[in-house]
Amino acid sequence: MAYELWYWPTIPGRGEFVRLALEAGGIAYADKARELGEDGLMADMHARLPEPFAPPYLVADGLVIAQVAAILLHLGDTHDLAPGDPAGRHFAHQAQLTIADMVAEAHDVHHPVAASAYYEDQKPEAARAAQSFRDERIPKFLGWFERALARSAGDWLTGARWSYADLSLFHLVEGLRFAFPRRMGAVEHDCPAVTALHDRVAALPELAGYLASDRRLPFGDGIFRHYPELDRA
Amino acid sequence: MAYELWYWPTIPGRGEFVRLALEAGGIAYADKARELGEDGLMADMHARLPEPFAPPYLVADGLVIAQVAAILLHLGDTHDLAPGDPAGRHFAHQAQLTIADMVAEAHDVHHPVAASAYYEDQKPEAARAAQSFRDERIPKFLGWFERALARSAGDWLTGARWSYADLSLFHLVEGLRFAFPRRMGAVEHDCPAVTALHDRVAALPELAGYLASDRRLPFGDGIFRHYPELDRA
Repeated sequence: MAYELWYWPTIPGRGEFVRLALEAGGIAYADKARELGEDGLMADMHARLPEPFAPPYLVADGLVIAQVAAILLHLGDTHDLAPGDPAGRHFAHQAQLTIADMVAEAHDVHHPVAASAYYEDQKPEAARAAQSFRDERIPKFLGWFERALARSAGDWLTGARWSYADLSLFHLVEGLRFAFPRRMGAVEHDCPAVTALHDRVAALPELAGYLASDRRLPFGDGIFRHYPELDRA
Repeated sequence: MAYELWYWPTIPGRGEFVRLALEAGGIAYADKARELGEDGLMADMHARLPEPFAPPYLVADGLVIAQVAAILLHLGDTHDLAPGDPAGRHFAHQAQLTIADMVAEAHDVHHPVAASAYYEDQKPEAARAAQSFRDERIPKFLGWFERALARSAGDWLTGARWSYADLSLFHLVEGLRFAFPRRMGAVEHDCPAVTALHDRVAALPELAGYLASDRRLPFGDGIFRHYPELDRA
């Protein structure tokens, strides 16, 4: 049975981390909300047992799995998209959870006081949040990945083969470059291994078809947003 | 070999979710940073391979596991602190990740623009963030747990036996009550199953010794903080 992926149909968002793993793994799936729209997504989600807290969620073989890192842990185990040894398996999961933390922070830069309000109604707060994110958080997070790559026994976060965590780090860098191009231009000088990892994923033959297709959605008003006034080198 | 738990020694913080599982499970552990202090914690963390991104982390049998939900998934599997069937095991992990999301949001209420700055330097922003958290986020998160409990086949989130996710939901309610006593007084009327779950965990014989001990740290200036000006029914 093919997997069902359910996520907001108009943005890459958190769904993209799952989509990249499914695509790179050559795993059959239906991107359900892109067929059925947001109303279909909401109707499906509220009818599921257990009900996911939020999209994305994956449905397969009677299981409903929500939370990106949990979905990827499952796909990693089931489809060999991460190391099988305990240390490597745990590290891929930890790296994914750390990416999830940074994704949430990247969202909160433009929505620091209320996710339900418009950016336009929280611009002064966002300007302050962006400064902290640019100056402190981006170097802290990417520095941690840089050290992890420096210590890896191979080209990838967990050794000689790519895992779902590498795909996610690629997409994180893509999102940060979209939202903060000036800042990333400066920071990436200090993170050459992260940049090289990004380029290695971008060149994976397993992803070439997907990345060139219209299944790969452009960034827009999702988690990663480009507001020039929030970006600075 | 006993586990080593490493976390900031002066606040319950995120370490408390791990501590509750270790204590309720009757699992031997050393709370290392309470012996060695913050300097000892930092020295240990930076020497670990892989280096955790942040405390808490658990060390055992050559594994270094960071991220609360990953630690608890491991303890659940290893010590039977969660269901063993795939659906129950996944749901406990998902519930834990959802708790982690709410914990991060509860922290960001008092630090909406910069985790590195003082609350006193972001009070107007915090006032706006608190309104959204109180009015929208607390009901949304607790409502989800209320429905999960209503649909459970037993008294606990995953059925007839407690799991680490129940312990964590107990501590989440404790933290929210500490930080937002007026708001929680109002919201809990709509979440009777969450309140009953909290009370059931508080009465677990497995936790009686710990909860009465000085190993259970009081809240303070950690993730959950009580600023009266941020609380309202």
